[in-house]
Amino acid sequence: MSEFNLQETIALLSRTPAALNALLRGLPETWTHRSEGDGSWTVFDVVGHLIHGERTDWMPRARRILESGDARAFDKFDRAGHQQEIQGKSMEQLLDEFTTERAENVDALSRLDLSQTDLKKRGLHPALGPVTMAQLLATWAVHDLTHLHQISRIMAHQYREAVGPWSEYLGVMQCNGHSS
Amino acid sequence: MSEFNLQETIALLSRTPAALNALLRGLPETWTHRSEGDGSWTVFDVVGHLIHGERTDWMPRARRILESGDARAFDKFDRAGHQQEIQGKSMEQLLDEFTTERAENVDALSRLDLSQTDLKKRGLHPALGPVTMAQLLATWAVHDLTHLHQISRIMAHQYREAVGPWSEYLGVMQCNGHSS
Repeated sequence: MSEFNLQETIALLSRTPAALNALLRGLPETWTHRSEGDGSWTVFDVVGHLIHGERTDWMPRARRILESGDARAFDKFDRAGHQQEIQGKSMEQLLDEFTTERAENVDALSRLDLSQTDLKKRGLHPALGPVTMAQLLATWAVHDLTHLHQISRIMAHQYREAVGPWSEYLGVMQCNGHSS
Repeated sequence: MSEFNLQETIALLSRTPAALNALLRGLPETWTHRSEGDGSWTVFDVVGHLIHGERTDWMPRARRILESGDARAFDKFDRAGHQQEIQGKSMEQLLDEFTTERAENVDALSRLDLSQTDLKKRGLHPALGPVTMAQLLATWAVHDLTHLHQISRIMAHQYREAVGPWSEYLGVMQCNGHSS
């Protein structure tokens, strides 16, 4: 395991939009617009959720820490907020929006020029309690990974029967959806 | 869930190299060259494994089905075969090799011009027993997804402590490595 490193975190955050773009742009809707059932998310929903995070979660919380420390808790994140982001849009539009929003946020983060002291500054999560700037930024990057993990699982689900007896060899088929 | 569809399968197989390239090229080795511990694979190992599959697994097995049906079992796949693929190479070299090998294989698959009858043809897996061409090709695509799932999990593991109390919200942190 590794300690938090700002440049390594930015390196990952910067790459996610292009990775999703390469995987999802033009991909048949069998993969992108079907869920795992029971009201679970489609890949399309997940991209909307990532956009909503760019707009309302990560950088607003980083700024809250710099402005108010732990004196004022973060605003709650709306887990249904993706619905407003995806309404009437195509996957291609969502990928473009995510690319633009992420690029602006990574640029804004870089311009904050955070010091080691800044990274230790504390904020207040409405449910988790005290957290640090470094923890927030690490979580931003791992949040990308948790949704990449989820996207691969949602897509694999569509071929759960098609793979026949191979399903026992395919780990993603045994994943029980902890990454919702 | 969906029935097997050759064009939708090819659409996914065609996109994986570019997705991995966008995610991994130039990414710091913190993310790509560290494992989940205990002899588990790094992301670098996983890309080597994908290359080894291109060379020895998927298309050779598809050709075996067309040539011999279930009269001659598939050759066993060497799960340690990635070691010979990665020796002395950089991540950039592996990504280039995977891109080239996959493009050649997708082209070869398309040129087979498989009919619905071909997709129902049976082969013999050395451990799983009878399988069909469609199951083999569906598994090829889901195998990409199971390793994308694994890659996201290996990377997230590096920040297991860095995210602090957020770990409970991050599904990928609860994934216990069924996708080895």
